Amino acid sequence: MTAPFASSQEFRPWLAGLPGPDAAARTAAAARNGMLTKPPGALGRIEDLAIWLAGWQGTDRPRIDRPLIAVFAGNHGIAARGVSAFPAAVTAQMVANFAAGGAAINQLARAAGARLTVHPLSLDRPTADFTEHPAMTEPELMAALAAGFAAVTDCDLLVVGEMGIANTTAAAALACALMGGAPADWTGRGTGVDDAGLARKTDVVARGLARHGAALACPVQALRHLGGREIAAMTGAIAAARAARVPVILDGFIATAAAAVLERAAPGALDHCVAGHVGAEPGHRRLLAGLGMGPLLDLGLRLGEGSGAALAIPILRAAAACLSGMATFAEAGVATAP
Amino acid sequence: MTAPFASSQEFRPWLAGLPGPDAAARTAAAARNGMLTKPPGALGRIEDLAIWLAGWQGTDRPRIDRPLIAVFAGNHGIAARGVSAFPAAVTAQMVANFAAGGAAINQLARAAGARLTVHPLSLDRPTADFTEHPAMTEPELMAALAAGFAAVTDCDLLVVGEMGIANTTAAAALACALMGGAPADWTGRGTGVDDAGLARKTDVVARGLARHGAALACPVQALRHLGGREIAAMTGAIAAARAARVPVILDGFIATAAAAVLERAAPGALDHCVAGHVGAEPGHRRLLAGLGMGPLLDLGLRLGEGSGAALAIPILRAAAACLSGMATFAEAGVATAP
Repeated sequence: MTAPFASSQEFRPWLAGLPGPDAAARTAAAARNGMLTKPPGALGRIEDLAIWLAGWQGTDRPRIDRPLIAVFAGNHGIAARGVSAFPAAVTAQMVANFAAGGAAINQLARAAGARLTVHPLSLDRPTADFTEHPAMTEPELMAALAAGFAAVTDCDLLVVGEMGIANTTAAAALACALMGGAPADWTGRGTGVDDAGLARKTDVVARGLARHGAALACPVQALRHLGGREIAAMTGAIAAARAARVPVILDGFIATAAAAVLERAAPGALDHCVAGHVGAEPGHRRLLAGLGMGPLLDLGLRLGEGSGAALAIPILRAAAACLSGMATFAEAGVATAP
Repeated sequence: MTAPFASSQEFRPWLAGLPGPDAAARTAAAARNGMLTKPPGALGRIEDLAIWLAGWQGTDRPRIDRPLIAVFAGNHGIAARGVSAFPAAVTAQMVANFAAGGAAINQLARAAGARLTVHPLSLDRPTADFTEHPAMTEPELMAALAAGFAAVTDCDLLVVGEMGIANTTAAAALACALMGGAPADWTGRGTGVDDAGLARKTDVVARGLARHGAALACPVQALRHLGGREIAAMTGAIAAARAARVPVILDGFIATAAAAVLERAAPGALDHCVAGHVGAEPGHRRLLAGLGMGPLLDLGLRLGEGSGAALAIPILRAAAACLSGMATFAEAGVATAP
């Protein structure tokens, strides 16, 4: 969809005005769930997921036929500060790898029966170094948000993923600005920096936060000052999904930081999202806890690309299949508990 | 396959003589994994799973094309002692529901792209009440084990599941006999008994253990005295998979108790198994800990039928897809960390 606002100042009020899930569909789904041939509650969280899907899809028979994984790539000025184990050129190299089908997310998308789209965002123009300037100008932020909105097409479930050398540093700064705490609370080893690299990352995060100070009080401005194009695009895509009532599976630390902008901008704005996994980057667990989200998987991933969320797609598909396909006690002629 | 032993006494030595995974394939898979286009270890446990699959499938390019879910059903003499929230007739009714496609496992199997077979085992002849007699005679045990062996056909991944009113009680008694501890440690609410029902279950478990005493020192005899046909069939099927080097995803408390017989009979006999999930029945978490197994999912399920393991099939398929399908750094022209 097209971004329905002309400036970032209009983003928050637009977001706050979006409708919630379909309450009638949710109620009907919960009633149906209670009649299915299993002991009450025996499918645990799978039942909650199915009812949640029902609400957002507006039917008591939800299904997932057209999942979309949209991966956004961006480059970061702070990469020059030695915050990553990999050179910045890897962002574009990995985009080529996505196009050729050789990356993890290609295999995971195919395994999950999901469509994969890849969106490189001005890779030859890194964002500004946020220790010196806002990472993005207002037009750059709007373009990145619009790229996210535009990516949400023809899907009944959305995963957003990212690729961007140095973007755990940007995500750490953004998460710290949004959630509070100290830079070290949010800064981890990313793709695998050593102790000196970790110290550099933490220092870069601290300097970014100090540099922009009061401007960070607004979540959307925090995104502009500290984020990156791929992060802002994920924020936009998750917002677009909310507007279209498309449920979203959140991926790792960076995608969740992008999502947290929305929750801070308009509480409840992530009601259409579930946390696909909790990753190995320590800030991710802290961020999910701060958002009140419990992950579906905990497998020690720290890759990004949408990988952890892609692994969770079959869980949601299975949840929908149980609610929509199981027989009731009456239909199956099975005795209920006395 | 046909059970390759004529009496239950021959089961343990046969089991102890089975070969392990293909070490060369495992080594080749680990080497390949290290060259793939991702930071080292960034797929976390997914990498371990892929290498494990490679060892059992005997190739550094594992794949899961023919997963099989075999569900066994049996009835239990102890059901007459009021240990379940549901009447014993539900076992056969649910088998009919499986045949008609209306149960949770039907939806989960289809969603996972798995073949589902259902094996009702003498439902009109419950096992003996183990508070008074051994649950099974030697011929009954052998028949149930053989049913498990026979069920393992044409598959590259196996899930075993069960249906049997009162079988959490049998599994609790079996787990207690195998692993030690007190009856209350292993007894839970199953499909949902109230406090009085839980007290009855715990008492039945304690009486069964007291009744059979020294006979329970042998894991296979513990299975005969306290188990049930569907439990013994799962034990047999998991053993048959081991002989065929077919990897297995363990399901819930009852399936894991069936598996624990093998580990106690021949340590290492479950090296071809992974725990698909940890369920809500408290004994399951304890049992997995005792077996040294970490579950892939923790979603609060307590249904059985193979449901939790079925939900984990796509995770293994995705792990195999990453190892087998990803490009190496050299193939993709992506720079490695310095």
